[in-house]
Amino acid sequence: MAVRVAVDAMGGDHGPTATVPGVLAALEAEPELEALLVGRPEDIRPHLAAAGSRLERRYTLVPATQVIGPEEAPTQAVREKADSSIVVALELCRQGQADGMVSAGNTGALTAGSFLKLGRIPGVSRPAMPVVLPTVDRRGLILLDVGAHTDPSARSLLEYGLMGALYAELVRDIGRPRVALLNIGTEERKGTSVSREAFSLLQASSLNFVGNIEGRDLFGGRADVVVTDGFVGNVVIKTLEGFAWGISQVMGHDLRHSGLLTLLGAALAAKTLRGLRRRIDYTEYGGVPFLGVNGVCVKCHGSSSAKAMCNGVLAAARIIRQGVVPSIARSVTEDPASQPAGPKTLEATARG
Amino acid sequence: MAVRVAVDAMGGDHGPTATVPGVLAALEAEPELEALLVGRPEDIRPHLAAAGSRLERRYTLVPATQVIGPEEAPTQAVREKADSSIVVALELCRQGQADGMVSAGNTGALTAGSFLKLGRIPGVSRPAMPVVLPTVDRRGLILLDVGAHTDPSARSLLEYGLMGALYAELVRDIGRPRVALLNIGTEERKGTSVSREAFSLLQASSLNFVGNIEGRDLFGGRADVVVTDGFVGNVVIKTLEGFAWGISQVMGHDLRHSGLLTLLGAALAAKTLRGLRRRIDYTEYGGVPFLGVNGVCVKCHGSSSAKAMCNGVLAAARIIRQGVVPSIARSVTEDPASQPAGPKTLEATARG
Repeated sequence: MAVRVAVDAMGGDHGPTATVPGVLAALEAEPELEALLVGRPEDIRPHLAAAGSRLERRYTLVPATQVIGPEEAPTQAVREKADSSIVVALELCRQGQADGMVSAGNTGALTAGSFLKLGRIPGVSRPAMPVVLPTVDRRGLILLDVGAHTDPSARSLLEYGLMGALYAELVRDIGRPRVALLNIGTEERKGTSVSREAFSLLQASSLNFVGNIEGRDLFGGRADVVVTDGFVGNVVIKTLEGFAWGISQVMGHDLRHSGLLTLLGAALAAKTLRGLRRRIDYTEYGGVPFLGVNGVCVKCHGSSSAKAMCNGVLAAARIIRQGVVPSIARSVTEDPASQPAGPKTLEATARG
Repeated sequence: MAVRVAVDAMGGDHGPTATVPGVLAALEAEPELEALLVGRPEDIRPHLAAAGSRLERRYTLVPATQVIGPEEAPTQAVREKADSSIVVALELCRQGQADGMVSAGNTGALTAGSFLKLGRIPGVSRPAMPVVLPTVDRRGLILLDVGAHTDPSARSLLEYGLMGALYAELVRDIGRPRVALLNIGTEERKGTSVSREAFSLLQASSLNFVGNIEGRDLFGGRADVVVTDGFVGNVVIKTLEGFAWGISQVMGHDLRHSGLLTLLGAALAAKTLRGLRRRIDYTEYGGVPFLGVNGVCVKCHGSSSAKAMCNGVLAAARIIRQGVVPSIARSVTEDPASQPAGPKTLEATARG
């Protein structure tokens, strides 16, 4: 199946220097892929010189004269810059001229823009932003939401579970993913009233729900998808980021004061830590999709290299081919826990 | 000033083997300290043999026949075991026979018991449990609440700030401590409605409020006291605990596969990590007090050694001497942000 991906060629720290070679590499890797390069033609063209004539018919340059900077106020920028590369790329998706889009640009503008242009999947109350966290068994886990919404209902948390599980299954090839709810204890009645209601809904769902998980068990490989609200999720990933930085500072100090013989060890430890810091960097995994948006919208890290952009484009292609969006639409409306009677019946049973 | 501390001699993984020598060491260190050793006399006495006659008149054995185990349901245990070492020690505080108490026992039972026996400081809506987190400048910071209450009001978050600042100042010798609110962005309007209201209250208070702080800045030494709700605080410390464990696993693996020359480096890295894991262990700091409880109640880690217990007893003595409880009582009623008109006036000003 041929898929067509719109790429915000202007986004990210490196702009077209990284995005255009990234797109060309993705086209090389995937014969049935087509790309729409969105941005300023004069900035994009120089980087296309390297493309052989073989690729020429598989990309199209779509002009967009404006760029949304990384520090701009998202909603305002999206409203005021209708001819920005992000907004034009989203518009191509909305009109069906592209099957999905990829950007390494302003995260907030991409979030706001995708909600505005593409809307939500019917049945989804809140879209969510996932990240992939490293685990000691190197499978990794999907944590969501990490910042789209700070105060979701239990119903939204159920949707996060359904969406995260489909993403794990269809894109990360994890069969029957284990879904857990991030909480402050493993017992069923732990946490806030929303936690408890979400626990019931997740348990009544078709998911492979493994119960509550505590922060201390996140990295042990006990779950594939971990559900939480955007406030806690955002604090968790940023705290990990800060802690990894802190460890590298302290360890660097300790190692520097430990003599020559250990320099090699120090170098190695530093390398491991750099690797870990990259792995917890929340958009490093070749890009993550906003789940629940009615379209495929993949966010790559601002510092993405050409290789990372290539991975982001290939991720978008895979999400399109695997039909993640229609699968979510089916899942959120058809899941047993989604039926109005579902949780009520459960509660009645529990009380009776 | 002579102070008298009741010690749950039965609590912790090591029981009297650690608690009794810990108390004796504290008595050696502080000439004006007296101790009440609470527990089973037959279990305590053998460990008192080492005490010289000099100390004999400074400790008293207070019999308690029951013990609350680490896995027992807290509230039920407190209600049913009136003659347990935890409950008897709290009762000694309530009756004024002790100025404070220390326990390495069941955290939940200690929390429930202290609320039940000692109540709250007048003006405090919610007690909070603080921890000390390491920072790269090695000053450390106080994070609270880490689990006493999952859903506090903005007013409670203000109280956490006031109590945490007094603890930092009076017990940790930090002049004019910088207080921050844990949030998902640094801008004033970030977070939930409770975050925003707490921001206003903290700003209107007498505190040295430095604004919102993100997880990534926790370890950089930018704040001395960080305020959050018990759900987020608990998830943060447990996630750090799990992450430190995960790093040591991954790094251990990487280091094992890196040749002989780096073994020394590996050993050193492992040592640094062990140190860090200890430092984020949330009750390792010689014990932390429950703040807001109308009395001095210090919790030591379950695995406390005699040295850790000694530190816990000395911490309790310092909290008593420094008058932390009466200072909190004054602070929560007299702070400008505590006045009913305070935040309203602020809002009116902001709107006008």
